[in-house]
Amino acid sequence: MTYCVAMRLADGLLFASDSRTNAGFDQISTFRKMHIFEQPGERELVLLSAGNLATSQSVISLLERRAITDVTNVLNTKCMFETAEIVGQTMREVIRRDNPDGKLSHVDFSCSLILGGQIQGEEPRLFNIYPEGNFIEATEETPYFQIGESKYGKPILDRVMNYHTSLDRAYQCALISFDSTMKSNLSVGMPLDVAIYRKDGLKPCFVDRVEEQCEYFLTLRQQWHRGIQDLMVGLEPPHLD
Amino acid sequence: MTYCVAMRLADGLLFASDSRTNAGFDQISTFRKMHIFEQPGERELVLLSAGNLATSQSVISLLERRAITDVTNVLNTKCMFETAEIVGQTMREVIRRDNPDGKLSHVDFSCSLILGGQIQGEEPRLFNIYPEGNFIEATEETPYFQIGESKYGKPILDRVMNYHTSLDRAYQCALISFDSTMKSNLSVGMPLDVAIYRKDGLKPCFVDRVEEQCEYFLTLRQQWHRGIQDLMVGLEPPHLD
Repeated sequence: MTYCVAMRLADGLLFASDSRTNAGFDQISTFRKMHIFEQPGERELVLLSAGNLATSQSVISLLERRAITDVTNVLNTKCMFETAEIVGQTMREVIRRDNPDGKLSHVDFSCSLILGGQIQGEEPRLFNIYPEGNFIEATEETPYFQIGESKYGKPILDRVMNYHTSLDRAYQCALISFDSTMKSNLSVGMPLDVAIYRKDGLKPCFVDRVEEQCEYFLTLRQQWHRGIQDLMVGLEPPHLD
Repeated sequence: MTYCVAMRLADGLLFASDSRTNAGFDQISTFRKMHIFEQPGERELVLLSAGNLATSQSVISLLERRAITDVTNVLNTKCMFETAEIVGQTMREVIRRDNPDGKLSHVDFSCSLILGGQIQGEEPRLFNIYPEGNFIEATEETPYFQIGESKYGKPILDRVMNYHTSLDRAYQCALISFDSTMKSNLSVGMPLDVAIYRKDGLKPCFVDRVEEQCEYFLTLRQQWHRGIQDLMVGLEPPHLD
């Protein structure tokens, strides 16, 4: 499994992904699920992936190769919408390659992607690309998307996040969302990859790999855990019986 | 969908369930998912159900009818283990009645149950009864079970609950777990049913129906929501870029 979250905020974009890949409990490995395509000064794109690793790796490889060979590719599209179309189309192509007749199989070939970024002349945009290759776009009312094992980490986002949340707060919020998920689900694991893109910078993202022993992560995890206990103690007591 | 949680704690047992039943978005109704069987002074049993309503209602009806007609029934078993066996067996029987050949169908006939209670001469016990009719029992290390839409409300339980948590705290914790679930998932809804059984009382549970406008629930919900915001603000700031 996997957990990825991305946010489109007034100040920019934030992306976070775990790195655990497992095919059964005794086949666990670490793979980066975040891929960046950039042309400094002109565009910055981030892609997060969840689901079948063979599918998502093929999609990334094809996008990278075609950025060199093809006339229209993710590095020269006119807008993010067109980029999302190319990514969705590439995913459909890979799934068709691996499962040509679309047969039901015990293998699930599908994957889900989040694509975000900014191309010069446009606002930053964020897309959730479904396994079918179609997609939806984040708005001010719905400023974040999750893919993979998303439920454990959703309540904190729903309570704290909105379009005007600062990038610092969003970073904390994402780390806590991952901490809650990893406490409840073994298939999501460290290290985490975080990328932060400041609106209109058109510069490479600030990229952070959060390892198990990362001091800031440990501090945050501890402050949050203690804070929740204290908050619980401070609640109005019920009047039972 | 449904969300139910039950805890076996040093001081007794706590059960909570929502009441929303839906077969599609325009077929929503309210059904109690908590059923109590009691013999004051001798036994107190609580059953929570999630899944196919036709199945769970049939199971409850058969258990009630057989408590009058049958030699061995949930009101005269010698121990909770035997009670869990009867409940599991009754569930298998109902599913076999409705789907005699065990065929794959677009209807899911299965349901999940939580059974807890105390019979004189035994400690309070808590069982999670799977759709197949087999079951596991809560221990001091794993003092709670959830059925139904369980993921959104799990992080708070994992952070706060343990076997020695007081019943007051467990009650608050259960309400917050439901609040988080209802914020993120439309298929879980008010009112909630809560039953609290004090260990060795062998008396009817304290039973509470928490309605949408319940003052204590609103206070708790607000205190928690504000507390989380404040906790977020108080976290050590990150050093980005």
